[in-house]
Amino acid sequence: MRLAIITEYDGTGFVGFQSQTNGRAVADVLAKAAGELYKQEIKITGCSRTDAGVHARGHLSHMDVPFEIPEDKIPLAMNALLPEDVSVVRAFYVDDDFSARFSNHGKRYIYRVYYGRVRHPIYSRYAYFDSYDLDVDKMKKAAAFFAGEHDFEAFCAAGSTAENFIRRLYSVRVTEHMPGYLEIEVSGEAFLYNMVRIIAGTLVEVGEGKILPDDIPSIIDSRDRKRAGRTLPPQGLTLEEVFLQKPFTVC
Amino acid sequence: MRLAIITEYDGTGFVGFQSQTNGRAVADVLAKAAGELYKQEIKITGCSRTDAGVHARGHLSHMDVPFEIPEDKIPLAMNALLPEDVSVVRAFYVDDDFSARFSNHGKRYIYRVYYGRVRHPIYSRYAYFDSYDLDVDKMKKAAAFFAGEHDFEAFCAAGSTAENFIRRLYSVRVTEHMPGYLEIEVSGEAFLYNMVRIIAGTLVEVGEGKILPDDIPSIIDSRDRKRAGRTLPPQGLTLEEVFLQKPFTVC
Repeated sequence: MRLAIITEYDGTGFVGFQSQTNGRAVADVLAKAAGELYKQEIKITGCSRTDAGVHARGHLSHMDVPFEIPEDKIPLAMNALLPEDVSVVRAFYVDDDFSARFSNHGKRYIYRVYYGRVRHPIYSRYAYFDSYDLDVDKMKKAAAFFAGEHDFEAFCAAGSTAENFIRRLYSVRVTEHMPGYLEIEVSGEAFLYNMVRIIAGTLVEVGEGKILPDDIPSIIDSRDRKRAGRTLPPQGLTLEEVFLQKPFTVC
Repeated sequence: MRLAIITEYDGTGFVGFQSQTNGRAVADVLAKAAGELYKQEIKITGCSRTDAGVHARGHLSHMDVPFEIPEDKIPLAMNALLPEDVSVVRAFYVDDDFSARFSNHGKRYIYRVYYGRVRHPIYSRYAYFDSYDLDVDKMKKAAAFFAGEHDFEAFCAAGSTAENFIRRLYSVRVTEHMPGYLEIEVSGEAFLYNMVRIIAGTLVEVGEGKILPDDIPSIIDSRDRKRAGRTLPPQGLTLEEVFLQKPFTVC
């Protein structure tokens, strides 16, 4: 039978979700714990790779398991076998044709930014520090241009193997939760390589006054990576949620 | 001239504030950065030691410096020389008889706890996880008994060299900020070894139903460490503030 699991992890100590030859991957750690629980080799299929250093609060995977454990017992059983920086927060049985990769309706990410005169070590593990006094109203104005279906080649890292760059974003929102502390929330159907980190970097450069909000449509149209802002580092990014159903508000 | 500095640090990678023979101390890291900035050896005097793994958002120290740099430039200059997990958030000149250790009016700590069925890696760096469903109302009731001047020997780790155990707490408050996410805030004039972590552990055991709220006065009176709750681990504890002036509400 097939089991879906929702996983939370602190990405600091990982090379990303997917197995790599060069270090510790979340998928390997999950496969090892599941192998101990089910006493046989288990293969984990994730909804997508996440980059080294990126965190997740709601990553979706699936695996085929040889016998049934009640859904509500699985997180506790798995967590007893997992290291401190990974946790299974929910598990549920799905049909055999369910795929974490193909049966989802997109993802919601939050890129966290704080700004001010001094950096704060306690925020820095999960947020990016900018020493500019960011103009948040301009960032909100710029964010509104991203929703919808666009060719996002300008927001894709060089070296991508994507064959087309058209992606649909449901929404991009900037919220200042506390003075100096921002969340850039990006929801979409699918994403290009480094797309959220480049959108966040572009919005930060709008906040810094280097890019005008009204220039966003022409930057998108240019399909030129050099016109968009810098790629922000991974630690500010968290995969918050994988949509199992179509979100209500879709562009 | 004498300079006071307010320091923030993530305690995970430190043996504590004070220099030790067995590892990296916050005071050493600050002294090294100050030594580079002022081109001579600088001695750092902290308001108190903090234990290995304990965090701080407002630790107070002082140091004697050979020349004047404007107060508002010091955090930036120091932070450029400090590692990622330490930051100077404020600096100000003080009289030569000021002492970080003796010229303060106490401290405010927060011990963070979250509870529920599953642990969350992203909270676990700065909070303690309890798998019991805590009764927060009972914890609030128990917390109210701690304020005031008491003999806190029951809340002091064995092996303390304290000569007397009488300390004055200004307030102990339990707040559930989000469902399942608590802050235990402890403000006081002075503290015994592990005192906040034992008070927090006692309140958690009240929440678990192992200790009754009304038993707190008799536990305090007993001066018996075994009657109080367990010592919670360091990562949940943050030194939030050192009082430079007497707090308004003092028991």
